Formats: sequence, structure tokens, C-alpha cells
Amino acid sequence: MSVRQPSDPATALRAPDVASCAAVLQRVRDRSPLVQCLTNSVVMPFSANVLLAVGASPAMVDIPEEAGPFAQVADAVLVNVGTPYAEQRDAMVEAARSAGSHGTPWVLDPVAVGSLAVRTRLVAQLLELGPDVVRGNPSEVMAVAGTADGGRGVDSTAATEESLDAAVSLATTLGGVVAVSGAVDVVTDGDRTTRVANGHPWLTQVTGGGCALGAVVAAFRAVESDTLSATVAAVASYTVAAEVAAATASGPGSFASSLLDALAGLDGETLRERIVLR
Amino acid sequence: MSVRQPSDPATALRAPDVASCAAVLQRVRDRSPLVQCLTNSVVMPFSANVLLAVGASPAMVDIPEEAGPFAQVADAVLVNVGTPYAEQRDAMVEAARSAGSHGTPWVLDPVAVGSLAVRTRLVAQLLELGPDVVRGNPSEVMAVAGTADGGRGVDSTAATEESLDAAVSLATTLGGVVAVSGAVDVVTDGDRTTRVANGHPWLTQVTGGGCALGAVVAAFRAVESDTLSATVAAVASYTVAAEVAAATASGPGSFASSLLDALAGLDGETLRERIVLR
Amino acid sequence: MSVRQPSDPATALRAPDVASCAAVLQRVRDRSPLVQCLTNSVVMPFSANVLLAVGASPAMVDIPEEAGPFAQVADAVLVNVGTPYAEQRDAMVEAARSAGSHGTPWVLDPVAVGSLAVRTRLVAQLLELGPDVVRGNPSEVMAVAGTADGGRGVDSTAATEESLDAAVSLATTLGGVVAVSGAVDVVTDGDRTTRVANGHPWLTQVTGGGCALGAVVAAFRAVESDTLSATVAAVASYTVAAEVAAATASGPGSFASSLLDALAGLDGETLRERIVLR
Repeated sequence: MSVRQPSDPATALRAPDVASCAAVLQRVRDRSPLVQCLTNSVVMPFSANVLLAVGASPAMVDIPEEAGPFAQVADAVLVNVGTPYAEQRDAMVEAARSAGSHGTPWVLDPVAVGSLAVRTRLVAQLLELGPDVVRGNPSEVMAVAGTADGGRGVDSTAATEESLDAAVSLATTLGGVVAVSGAVDVVTDGDRTTRVANGHPWLTQVTGGGCALGAVVAAFRAVESDTLSATVAAVASYTVAAEVAAATASGPGSFASSLLDALAGLDGETLRERIVLR
Repeated sequence: MSVRQPSDPATALRAPDVASCAAVLQRVRDRSPLVQCLTNSVVMPFSANVLLAVGASPAMVDIPEEAGPFAQVADAVLVNVGTPYAEQRDAMVEAARSAGSHGTPWVLDPVAVGSLAVRTRLVAQLLELGPDVVRGNPSEVMAVAGTADGGRGVDSTAATEESLDAAVSLATTLGGVVAVSGAVDVVTDGDRTTRVANGHPWLTQVTGGGCALGAVVAAFRAVESDTLSATVAAVASYTVAAEVAAATASGPGSFASSLLDALAGLDGETLRERIVLR
Repeated sequence: MSVRQPSDPATALRAPDVASCAAVLQRVRDRSPLVQCLTNSVVMPFSANVLLAVGASPAMVDIPEEAGPFAQVADAVLVNVGTPYAEQRDAMVEAARSAGSHGTPWVLDPVAVGSLAVRTRLVAQLLELGPDVVRGNPSEVMAVAGTADGGRGVDSTAATEESLDAAVSLATTLGGVVAVSGAVDVVTDGDRTTRVANGHPWLTQVTGGGCALGAVVAAFRAVESDTLSATVAAVASYTVAAEVAAATASGPGSFASSLLDALAGLDGETLRERIVLR
């Protein structure tokens, strides 16, 4: 009936709910999707550890001539432009092209776009290649949508709700999903908008706290073809785990470690108890 | 009255003391300075996490065409030559030039200078651009000052006091500050020399234990224009936090995590109780 | 009497046993070998921290013009092709050549070889330069030996025993040692084969859990010229520490931290109690 082929047709195109989040998390565990990451050198270790903790299989294949072929066999691809060295820029475009050609879903994280020239040109080129999901902070999303200039380095200078119009507009233009991180995360496909009111401020005190979420979104999208449901499930699982982790941590250092433990131990019951979707 | 414009004129040009250390730490917390890091790929995650823990905002902007413009808007810049890839070498020179032109303070960490050809040439070039602070171990400081050949890889083969003459001479030549790491840290601007007798041996068992301190010095210098006071406050805060962290750690792994927690929780009272300045 | 000059002639060419493992670990502690790492950017921090924890001294010197000269003075070299950027590929070949010329032992970790073009060509070139040890998972070892295509990204699709013939054949061809990681690790020099039945599944949930072992093998080989004994001692020390760490960890995040603590605290008595060699 449709060109979309969701893993579970019953949940497709409905609003994501707690049950669909738990189901997608379980599928990640069951299938261990192979997630190719072309990401910045600051967050590589943490992103890989987060992927392992949720049950996915990370592979940082980010050089030309390897990135394209690998995007054909990977279950999903993350492209994060945080430290876009020349070799990686070529590999990112190669991977995104290959992902598009072979139906591999891919996520774009436009770190600090807008205020820095090289990545801003790169992001423009990558957007043309049609990412399934764009994940960023409010300033980045507004910069990508053309309504602001990207904030202060990697920090957002705008609030999540302030970027809602930009997010909806960008999602519609892309025919994809936009996820905006903040105290309350906003996820939209242009038609449907879901807010996830979970998380903890320590997520902003861990390098790669946001970047690793992009990798998780890729992992979840690999096993759920309704991109909105996949993205909401990823955001909810990650931010609920952050709440669990914060309860046993003494500061941002022990929190980073506890977050990995909490992601590895996260179950459907905890999700159902804690998720706050709006 | 002066071209120097310290944040707090009353403390400028006086010997740094416990009160000035606590005041500078508090200003870092209040202002969250944006610290651009061009640093080695081994220590990027830890350095960024340390900056977040002290209350600063890290941004690893280290490619040509972005590094220069960003150094204009950053509050301080760290240049650490630990893994100086070609692209980063160009970006480091670009950032240092821009920092010099726009009055952005910057810190140079000449990792393993002297014994390795590429970085030794690079450091010579960077020194010409006038860093506000040079931070290193005794062998590195002596190599930069031209009195020794740089030690064994990243390890120092000389003691801190042995490098004192080299440090004073280098600081005078630069018109800046030199910080030498060791069991007792030495910080000098050529005229004034302060020793900080805090810290813990586990700092040498954590990759980036020294490199991250360079980033902290940059953050503190961003909010205090008396470079000696800023550097002493950074060294003291970092090494006192290490003592606090060691009390709850079981080894170098848990220590690294506890150090981030301790830096995030560090307050003026703990500083005042523990700092040993000479 | 022999061109081989083992540190302890009494243990050379005998089967490695618990006593020889404990002796080699102690020598690493006593001599703090300088281990040059040319390794992938995902695992650099963890590998360096693991080396520090066992008592070695890591140095990530991985650019052309520095890598070769440094391999002459280093006590051992690790070459890991996980993220083989162009500059590092040149440096790896330079370091391997220099190590060969100057008698510096070196270890090759052929991450994801077989399925990816650039690294597969690079590994072929590096094998010609005669590594002392090749360390990999079963799929990688089979790919290097020419009997399989390398698995799925960094994950092995084959079991350790399945790769035994390939490992023996490769070790014989190289005149070196091959170490295959798995639930039971296999280490062979073609003539003698030792199995190490220690470890914990969480090692596969930490990014760099395998890659860091390659660095440990290099450190142990630096102080023991019987390559089989050195490699078995490294594998045994690392996997026994993993068992100790797992006893106090709550998941993969706290396990990574505990592993560093356990490696730093590991003593001969614990080794003797726990090692299972076959």
C-alpha cells in the first residue's frame, strides 16, 4: 500500500508512544545494527561506547575509498561535522552519496554550522544529499534552516521552542526528521511533532553528550523505518538512561561512566515508567 | 593608567595568593569562557571534559580557514603540538596569528619538543608569535629555552627545579609566563616566581593529565589579565582537585573520573584549605 | 650462543607458564618501556591509559618524519590500522621500516582488514616488513592469512578455534607470533600454541578493548625477547585484570574505569591464582 516499509506496520505513521519506544529499543538489542560513524575526533570514543552500550555495533570508517563502500553494507550512517578534516570531508560526502544510493538511512549532525566557513559549506553540500535525520541544538537547526547564524561555537544561544518553526520547515523541506536537543527535546517530521521531556543537565557537561545521541538515532533508525518513531525512541532511551545514571553519579565524570552502564541496563519497564512524551 | 586591564586591578602585579586563586576560579564559573583548543588527538576528550568541569566552554576548532576566524571570537586559545598533523599545523599557526592580532590570549604546550623534528620546527614558529603562557614539563621547557633536548617522548627526564633558570629566561624573552609541571609546579613571569605544592602522582597516570592543564590555564587566563595570577590559579585549582579526587579513587581509572567530579565541585573554601603556594 | 637474547634465558623457548607471565609483568613495571603507538583515533585515549596502567610509557608519534626516527629509540611499536588516514599510513610504513632496521619489536593490529580496500592494501605492505606479532580477531587473522574476507566491520564473524589453522600458518610464514582474541585467546608461534582462558564479555563492550591489548603486547614484548612468552603474558595479564575489574563494575562504563584500576593494581599473586593457560 505504501513505499514506506516500516518494521512494524502497526506503529508506522502513528504518533510515537511509550510502547513503540520500548519496541524499537528491543529491536536494536536483538539485531545489533552496524552503525558507520564519520564523526569528530573529540567524541569518537564516547560515541562508540554509547553505541556498544545500547547494543549496536559501531564502525568508524571515515576515509575516502572505504567510506562509500562501507555505507552500502552498514545498517545506518552518522555524519557529524565537528572536526571536519579535509580527508573526512571527502569521506563524508562519499558516504552520504553511497547511503542515498543504497537505501542506507543516515543522520546528519551539523555541529557549529553557520559561524564557521568550512563546515557550513560542507553541511550545505550534505543537505543536498538528503539525510533522513538532522540532529542539532536550536542554534544549529536554525542555522541549517537559514533563520540564524549558528550560535557560539558548539553552544546554542537559542532555546528549543524558539527553533520549532525552523525545525518544522527544515523537516518538511528535507522530507525527513529534525531533532532539536534541549531541556525538552523536540522531534518533528514536519507533520507530527513529539516532545521528549526527559534528561539531565549533566548531559551538557559531558563532551559528546549530544554527538553520541546522533549515533544512537542512527542505530534506532536502522531497525525502524518510521523515522519519527525511531528518532523519538532514540532520544527517549538516551535521556531516560541519563536520568537513571544521574541518580548514582557524583559529578560529570562519574555520570559519563554511569550513563554507559545505564544504557546497557535499560529495559522496557524503566522506559515505560519514566518516559515523558508530549 | 595602564595598558594592562586586569579584571580586578587590586590583584594585578601582586604575588598570586589564595584569595586571588579563588576569585579567578569563580570568574571562570560566572563567565564560562569559550576556549578554542587545537590539541592532540589522544587528549581531546579528556581536555574538553576538564574544561566543562571547571565551567568553561570548549571548542575544538582546528582546521585552516576556521581556526583563525574562531581565534578572533574565542576568549582564549590553547595550542598543543602533541600529534601535529599537517592540517593542524597550518591551523595552529593561523590561530596563533589571529589570537595575536585580536588580543585573544593563548597558551602553548610544546609536547615532546626537541627530540622530534616536525614539532620542533613548529614550536619555533609558534614561539615567534608570542604565546602568553608556555606550559610543559621540565625537559620541554629546557628544550624550548634551548638548554636541553626535550627528554624521552612525552616524559621529562629533568626535575622541575633543574629547569628554573630556563623557565625564568624563557618567560623574560617571551614577556609571558612559563609553567613547569612536576611534583611541585613552578610558575614564573621572569620577575615573580610562584610554586604550587599540590597535586597527586595519579595525574601522571592519566593520559592528558598535563595536557588538560594547558586548557585550564587558557580558561583562567581568559578571565584574568594578570597572566601569572591566572596561571597560578589554574594550576592550583587543578592540582587541588586532583588531591580531592585521589581521596575517593581506587586507581588511575577511577581517578580520572573523580577528577572531573572534583573539578566540577571545587569551591573557594576547599581551595583556601588546601592550596600550598611558595 | 644464539642470536636470540631473551631477558631471562631460562624461560626462552619453553612453553609460557604462570611464572613467566608474572616475571614479564614485573619487568614491564620495573623498566617502563617506551611504546610508540600509531593507532586509530577512536582508541587513542584508552590505549594510552592502559599502557600507563600496566606501567609502560605511551607515546603517540604518528606523523611522517617523526615516526621513523622515534621507532629507533622506542622500546616497541604498535601499528593499528583502525582509522588509517593518509598521513598516518605513511607514518606507519616509515615506523615499521625503521623498527625493522633498528631491531625494535613491533606489533601489527590489522583492524577490519579484508573488507575495506585502503587498509587491506596497507596491511599487505606492512606484513612485508615483518611484524613480530599480529593481533586480531578470528576474521581478521583469517583475512590476513588469506583464508577469509575479514568479517563485518570491526566485528569477527568467525570463532577463535576456527581460525587456528590460519593463525599457525601465518605465524610460520612471518616467523613471528599470532594472537587471536576471543572467549579463549589463542597465541601461537607456529610451533607452540598457548590458549588463555581468562577475560570477561565486557571487554567486547568497551571501545578499544581489543586494540589496547595490542599496545600491551608491544609493552610486554619490549622486555621479553621470546615473543610467545611476551604475548601470552600480555594477554593473560590483560584478561585477568578484566576479571578482577568485572567483579566491581556495574556495566561497561564502570568496567572500563575499573579495568585501568585493576591493571595498575595487578600483582603476581593475583596472576598466579587466576591465570588459566592451556
